[in-house]
Order: sequence, then C-alpha cells, then structure tokens
Amino acid sequence: MSNFDIFIGETTGTAILILLGGGVVAAVVLKRSKARDAGWLAISFGWGFAVLTGAYLSAGISGAQLNPAVTLGLAIEGGTKWSDVPLYIGSQMLGAIIGAFLVWVTYMGQFAAHLTDPEILAAQPGTEGLVDQKAAPQAGPVLGIFSTGPEIRNVLQNVLTEIIATFVLVIAILTQGLNNSGNGLGTIGVLITALVVVGIGLSLGGPTGYAINPARDLGPRIVHALLPLPNKGGSDWSYAWIPVVAPLIGGAAAGGFYNWVLA
Amino acid sequence: MSNFDIFIGETTGTAILILLGGGVVAAVVLKRSKARDAGWLAISFGWGFAVLTGAYLSAGISGAQLNPAVTLGLAIEGGTKWSDVPLYIGSQMLGAIIGAFLVWVTYMGQFAAHLTDPEILAAQPGTEGLVDQKAAPQAGPVLGIFSTGPEIRNVLQNVLTEIIATFVLVIAILTQGLNNSGNGLGTIGVLITALVVVGIGLSLGGPTGYAINPARDLGPRIVHALLPLPNKGGSDWSYAWIPVVAPLIGGAAAGGFYNWVLA
Amino acid sequence: MSNFDIFIGETTGTAILILLGGGVVAAVVLKRSKARDAGWLAISFGWGFAVLTGAYLSAGISGAQLNPAVTLGLAIEGGTKWSDVPLYIGSQMLGAIIGAFLVWVTYMGQFAAHLTDPEILAAQPGTEGLVDQKAAPQAGPVLGIFSTGPEIRNVLQNVLTEIIATFVLVIAILTQGLNNSGNGLGTIGVLITALVVVGIGLSLGGPTGYAINPARDLGPRIVHALLPLPNKGGSDWSYAWIPVVAPLIGGAAAGGFYNWVLA
Amino acid sequence: MSNFDIFIGETTGTAILILLGGGVVAAVVLKRSKARDAGWLAISFGWGFAVLTGAYLSAGISGAQLNPAVTLGLAIEGGTKWSDVPLYIGSQMLGAIIGAFLVWVTYMGQFAAHLTDPEILAAQPGTEGLVDQKAAPQAGPVLGIFSTGPEIRNVLQNVLTEIIATFVLVIAILTQGLNNSGNGLGTIGVLITALVVVGIGLSLGGPTGYAINPARDLGPRIVHALLPLPNKGGSDWSYAWIPVVAPLIGGAAAGGFYNWVLA
Repeated sequence: MSNFDIFIGETTGTAILILLGGGVVAAVVLKRSKARDAGWLAISFGWGFAVLTGAYLSAGISGAQLNPAVTLGLAIEGGTKWSDVPLYIGSQMLGAIIGAFLVWVTYMGQFAAHLTDPEILAAQPGTEGLVDQKAAPQAGPVLGIFSTGPEIRNVLQNVLTEIIATFVLVIAILTQGLNNSGNGLGTIGVLITALVVVGIGLSLGGPTGYAINPARDLGPRIVHALLPLPNKGGSDWSYAWIPVVAPLIGGAAAGGFYNWVLA
Repeated sequence: MSNFDIFIGETTGTAILILLGGGVVAAVVLKRSKARDAGWLAISFGWGFAVLTGAYLSAGISGAQLNPAVTLGLAIEGGTKWSDVPLYIGSQMLGAIIGAFLVWVTYMGQFAAHLTDPEILAAQPGTEGLVDQKAAPQAGPVLGIFSTGPEIRNVLQNVLTEIIATFVLVIAILTQGLNNSGNGLGTIGVLITALVVVGIGLSLGGPTGYAINPARDLGPRIVHALLPLPNKGGSDWSYAWIPVVAPLIGGAAAGGFYNWVLA
Repeated sequence: MSNFDIFIGETTGTAILILLGGGVVAAVVLKRSKARDAGWLAISFGWGFAVLTGAYLSAGISGAQLNPAVTLGLAIEGGTKWSDVPLYIGSQMLGAIIGAFLVWVTYMGQFAAHLTDPEILAAQPGTEGLVDQKAAPQAGPVLGIFSTGPEIRNVLQNVLTEIIATFVLVIAILTQGLNNSGNGLGTIGVLITALVVVGIGLSLGGPTGYAINPARDLGPRIVHALLPLPNKGGSDWSYAWIPVVAPLIGGAAAGGFYNWVLA
Repeated sequence: MSNFDIFIGETTGTAILILLGGGVVAAVVLKRSKARDAGWLAISFGWGFAVLTGAYLSAGISGAQLNPAVTLGLAIEGGTKWSDVPLYIGSQMLGAIIGAFLVWVTYMGQFAAHLTDPEILAAQPGTEGLVDQKAAPQAGPVLGIFSTGPEIRNVLQNVLTEIIATFVLVIAILTQGLNNSGNGLGTIGVLITALVVVGIGLSLGGPTGYAINPARDLGPRIVHALLPLPNKGGSDWSYAWIPVVAPLIGGAAAGGFYNWVLA
C-alpha cells in the first residue's frame, strides 16, 4: 500500500462517509427536506450506510479505516504501522472537511430556508443534538448536522459514553482478523461493520450522538466555523475536545484488549 | 454477452426497478393504500430493494446496469464497450416505461380514488416531491410517483445535488472492480449496491428526491404524460432536463475519477 | 431429496414463515401488544425476515419453496419434478395451518383483549386490511392477521396486483440459477430473497396486502374459520379465491418467462 | 477451544449483546435521549444488531452462543460438550451483568433525569414492558431497560410465547449445521442469525418482550436490583422465573427436534 493509496483512499472514503452521514442529519433536521422528521431510525441507518459506502469504496485501496480511533486501535494491534498513522489521520481529517462542505453544497437551499425561518430561530438552540441544554449559548441551530453534542452536559458521562461506543466499534473491526484470514476489510466484513454502526447509533447514540470518530466530529466542526451561513450560531468549541479525546481512548483500549486478552 | 442478453436483461431489470421504486412511492402517497404515510424511511428502503431485485435478476444476463449514468461511467472506465451504450440506454428507457405503466396497473384503484378526492385536489400540488414550490402550476398531484421534483427550485443546487448523489452511486459500483475479481456484479455486490442506494436516499434525497438515473426519471415522466388519468395535472417538463443531464455528468465524473485517480 | 425431506422441510419452514408473518401483523394490530402501531415498515420487514427464517431452516432439507406459486414456477422451469408438486403443496398447506394456529397461541391474551374491547368492535371492520371497504360484512376485525384483503374491492385490479407481485417474487427466486451454480437456495440467496420480499411488501403491498402465496392466505383463513374466537366475524370467503388463483398465475408466468426468455 | 476461550468469548460477547440490547431500550424509553420514542422497529433492529455485534466478536473465540438456551440446545444436538455447559452459562451470566451495568454507565444522566421527573413518576408503572398490567406494584419505571415483562400477565401464555420464540431462534441457529459445513457460526451465519432475531422481535415480541435468553433477562434483573437508583421501583421477581425456564424449554425442544426430526 503506497502513501498515495493511503491518502486517496482515506480522503475519498472519509469524504463520502461524512457527506452521507452529515447528509442524513440534514435530511431529517432541515426545513423543506423531503425526509424531514424521518426520525432516529433513519439517522442510524443513514450513518451506517454512510460507513458502508465509504468503507466499500476505500477497502481495496487503503483498508477503509476512515477514523483516527480505528487507526490508533489498529496501530496498537499491529495491523497498521505507526509510521503510517499521521498520514492516515491527516487524510481522514481532510476527507471529513471535504465531506462536510459537500453536505452544505447538497443542502444549500435547505440551509438558507432553515436559517432564515423566524420560528426555527426563535426556538434556537432547539435543534437536533442541542435540546434541553442548560447552557449552550454558543451552539447554533444547524451545528448538529456537522458535529455532535450531548443531550445532557456532563463531562464524565459524555466521555464514558464515547469511550464505550468507540470500544465496541473498534473491537468489532479488529475481530475481523479472527473471522477472515485475509487482511483488510473483506466485503462481508464491510457490510457487518456498517450494520454494527447502525446498532451503535440505535443503542448508544442517545446521550451524545455517537461521534466515535475524532475526524467525523472535528473536521465538520471546522467547516461549521468557517462557512458564512446567516444565523448559524456558535460551533460549541467547549465541547469539541470530548469527541476527539474519548474516541481515541476507546480505540486504544480496544486495541489493547484485543491484543492482550482476545487474540 | 449478446445483444439480446443486453436487451432483455436491461429491459426486464429496469422494468422491475421502476415497478418497485415507483410502487413504494405510490404505496406511501396514495389514498387507500395500506402503506399510506409510511414515511421516507419506507421510500428509501423500497427504492433500495427495488435496485436489489432488478439488479439481482439482470446481473447474470446483462450486468445489471439499469441506469444510463452507470452505463456512461462504465464506458468511460472501460468495463462497457462504447458501441453497446446505445442498446443499454435504449433498453433501460423501454424498461422504465414498462415499469411505470405497471405501477399504474398495480395501483389503478388507488390512483382513481386519490385523483377524484376533493380534499386531495384542493391541496394540490401538495403531493410528495412537490411541496412548497413557489411556482409549479404544471406539476400534478401524482407526478411524484413517476418522476422526481425538487423541494426548492434552484437550478444550481438541483444540478449539484444530482451530480453529487450520482457520483456516489457510480463510484461505489465501479469500486466493485477493486473488491471482486470477477466481472459483473457479484451477489454480495448487488446487495451492497442496493444498501448504498438506501443510504443515498436517506442522506442525499432530501432536496430533489434523488433521480440519480436518467431513465428512472424520464421514462416514467413520459408515462405520466400519456396516461389518461383524471386531474393528473402537468408533467413538469421544465424540470425534466435536470434529472437527465445532472446524473450523466455525475456518472461521467465518477468514471473519470475512478480511472485516473483510484485505479 | 426424500419424500420425508420434502414433507418435513416444507411443513416446518412454512409453519415458521406463517408464525412470524402472521405474528408481525398481530404484533402491530392487536391491542396490548408492545409493537402496536409500529406501522407498515415493521410489517414489511417482519414478513421478509419470516421468509428468511423459514427459508434458512428448510433450504438444506427441501429447498425452501414454502409457496405453491414458487413450486409451480419451479416445476415449469424444471427445477422441481411435477410428481413432487402435490407433496410440496400439501406440506405447505399443513405448515401454514400449523403456523396460523401458533400465532393464536402466541398472542392468545392479545386476541382476547382485542376482541372484547367495545371501542374496537364498534369500529369493525376497521382493522388492518379491511379499511374502507364498500361491502365486507363477512370480514371480521382480526382476519387481517390471518389472511389478506383488498383496500378496494376490484376483482380485476386485485388479481392483476397479486399476479404482478408474485411474478416479481418467483422470477427473483428462479434467477438464482443464473447467479449460483449450485441447486437449492444458497445462504446468500436466502438473504436476498428475504429482502426482495421486504421490497415487494413495501412497494406492491398497498392494494391487497401481498398474499403472493396461496398457502400463506388459504391455510390461515381456514384457521380463522375454525378457531372459536368471540366476535371474530366472517372469514371473507368471497375474496379467498383471488390470493390462491392469482399467485399461481403469477408463478406460472414467471416460470415460463424464465424458461423461454431469460434462460 | 480452551476454557479461557469459552470464558472470555462468552463473557465479552454477552456483555456487548446486553450493552447494545439494553442500550436501545434505554435510548427509546428514557427522557432526554436523542432516540426517544423511536419505536418498536428501532428496538427490534437494535437488539438484532446487538446480537450481530456480540456474536461477530465471539464467533471465532467461543462459538458465539451468548445464551443458555442456545447452549442447552447445542448440548442436546451434540455440538457442545455437556461438561462445557456450566462454564458457558456462567460466563454468559457474568457478561450479562457487566453489560447491564454498562448500560447504566452509558445512560447515567438519562436515568437520573428520568427517575426524578414528576410526570414520569406519576405515570408509573407506565413504562415500556409494563403498560396496562393488572397488578405489578413491584415493577419499577425503568425495569424494562434491564429485563422483560409481559403486557398481560398470564403464566400459560407468557410461558408458551417464550417457548415458541426461543424454539424459532435455536432451530435457526442449529440449522447452520445444514447450511455451512464448518463448525461455529460463519460470518454469513452471524448476519442471518442477527436478522432472524430482528424478525423474532417484530413478530413474537409483542406479548412478553422476547427474553428468549435466560442470561439476557436474569443478569440485568440482578443489576436492576442492586443499582442504587432513586425511585427505581421493584425488580418484579415474581415474573423472573418465566424468562429463565421457558427459553430453556424452547431451546431444549429445538435441540431435540433438530436431532430426531430434521437431521
């Protein structure tokens, strides 16, 4: 696997992951979208099939990691060289930024209609991922399309939830080494991983919106901060470290658990 | 693969694709259907499993392209001969017309009940795919069962959305060459492609209803124009070029990106 | 494959098909079920996974036909001997009767609560599958759990809808011969067939409730007629021939189309 | 397969099964969860993908039984040694306890908000799995997240429903021996088993909430009894024997039916 393979596979795969993942939230949340109010089941399946599409595309090129927490877990497990880690993570961040920008391109009319609607602005910050928060003045009405936010702000719980959810994701991916003799994600492995992500969303997404991927959260948050949208509100930077640090801890724990207990 | 194989595989497969795809919209939209108001998740899964059924049927016969944008992408990539392209596209158009007619046969009683209901006609054009349009006097109340229409009429956004969504579809299909050594869609490849289409519907279908296939949109629009339904309204021909041209651009872009970047 | 294999495979497989298929309708329709009002998407997935379970169980024993329309299509296609057809169909009928009885066993308390509820009885026959019928005095409030009924009584449409939907089912099953070299349903084939059934339910189930299987409709209707339930109403025998005859026509047409056009 | 393999595979796999399975109920039921009111379809898919994740992880280590009823069925069938049964069941119980505790960790803020909400407490015991019970003073408002409870308390029906549902589960798992020549759950087998569990939930879960697994019900009930949650109410021990005994009968019956009729 050349450096270019890693770069192009991870960038393209993560861009498609975020385009479809952010897209389903936009589809469900934004005014004048055909999918409006399709609910949490739609969001969970949408993110799962976003993983399917991005991972299927990049599996044969870069191994479909698409997530710094997966990369870290694989580095600890030994499937990825530590010297490749920076390129993986950098490519994932670039891809996430491109994907989040494409979500805006795809839904530009819906963003404009939503962010200029008086009723929606009056209810601010009552948007997805930002309901019932005691104090989140910096969180804007469409931030949930880009990045995650907790239903209840509690650093201990938010960190633990993201660690647990990411541990489940990464241990499932590492297990493929037990089930498939080949390296890289096999086709069935990609499908099962995608359905595991649907399951994580349904089961563990309730408290924080399941970032479980530092690039998935930080890249789009940067795009939210940069895009000149009217009335977009703040990017909630005070929360931003949790969906970066906690998934890395969860991925590292999964790598260690796999290596020293399961394998 | 003989010319007859291409003709019968693409015609039959596309007819079943459109029968099931148009069928799920009819099921969800029309009065006196058991599935009425089943929502966007039902529509997205219905279209995805329509792809599954049509592609599974035709994979071993014609390679299950069922979509001129896919055919164009494969011609650029090299998997389909340019000399076969007209037969592929012509067969897809014929199949789409047959499929749309069969949707009407299957739901004929529901169409009659819907189109003679005073409440529904009074709310016109408030049907699926046609809500909140500033000016669409030519768009009838059941057109959404046949063809796509945008929630917000904005040529730039509508074109970009269809290009992006089709690019995702075609790049995923082309990627199969990386994952499966055989040619044509393998059985698992058909399943994954179908779930990718579910994902595209959930994530990228909000603005325009994701035509992502010129035959899927134009063939049924012709059937809508020809069927002598009472109060059917216009066929919205002013929009008809977008779901033809934009998917072809997206498919061509995917073919080029695959050949000159990924492969 | 011995006669006993055919008998036990088809009886067991069809019993489980109907147990789970009738079960999901009971779950969604009956008062005091945890799944009440889960909607058409739940019904469509429930029936599809009922096919998955019944077919997965019987695939290695009897070939998982579970449906006289499939058996007829396979006999025409040549995959099943004509001399085996009576045993297949008889076993399927027996299994369907057992399965429908087990639905009642599983939901006996819910049946009792539902059929003695004054509000529900007053709204009769406003149960699933029986809404808005001009004249169906013989159709009882829980018949939809056992057998299908049309939303609009129109013999021509009802027959055509069942023919079309069964054609799609049987042609998809016969296609497996093109995709898998082995005989019988492979594991992936079972999964795809199940998802095709989900798709048929979503897309073509709106008008008649998609019997697409004579045993699935007639066997449970007999059980409905025989079970001594209070206030159960009639078994709608005037409609009963359509979900028997039309699926057989659809299955035969698929067998002929496969043999003389596709193969 | 060493004793350590059995121990670590079953403990880890069952912990993840219960974490995701209990998690989806918490997500749908608890106040201030993003997935609140996502409905029975979400619960059924969530439990199915919980099986997928736990079984995929442990398939290559311990054979992914994760359920004493499955272990009993396999012991009768011959696939598991009787001398290994105590270790399997003990590990499953330990895993279930760990998993239920992790559900509380993941949703701790939601538990606190829910159990101190005056409206929710006033409606007690009107929580999932506990609606409309004639007399269940010992059943608390969040017990349904941990353990199952019947909609209608009727020992005969509750026992029969759990026997039937578990029989379907275990016979489907045993059938894999007919479809796959290898031992243990193959990757496709894990996927199909997971979807069978989705189907059992949709179709047979209405009356009792489908325990179909003694460890899945008893382990979390112990955790509910021990966790010092405010206003948690009783653990409904009078019902607790049914989801233990009935699934064991169903699993044993499936093992016998498989051995003496199908195989």
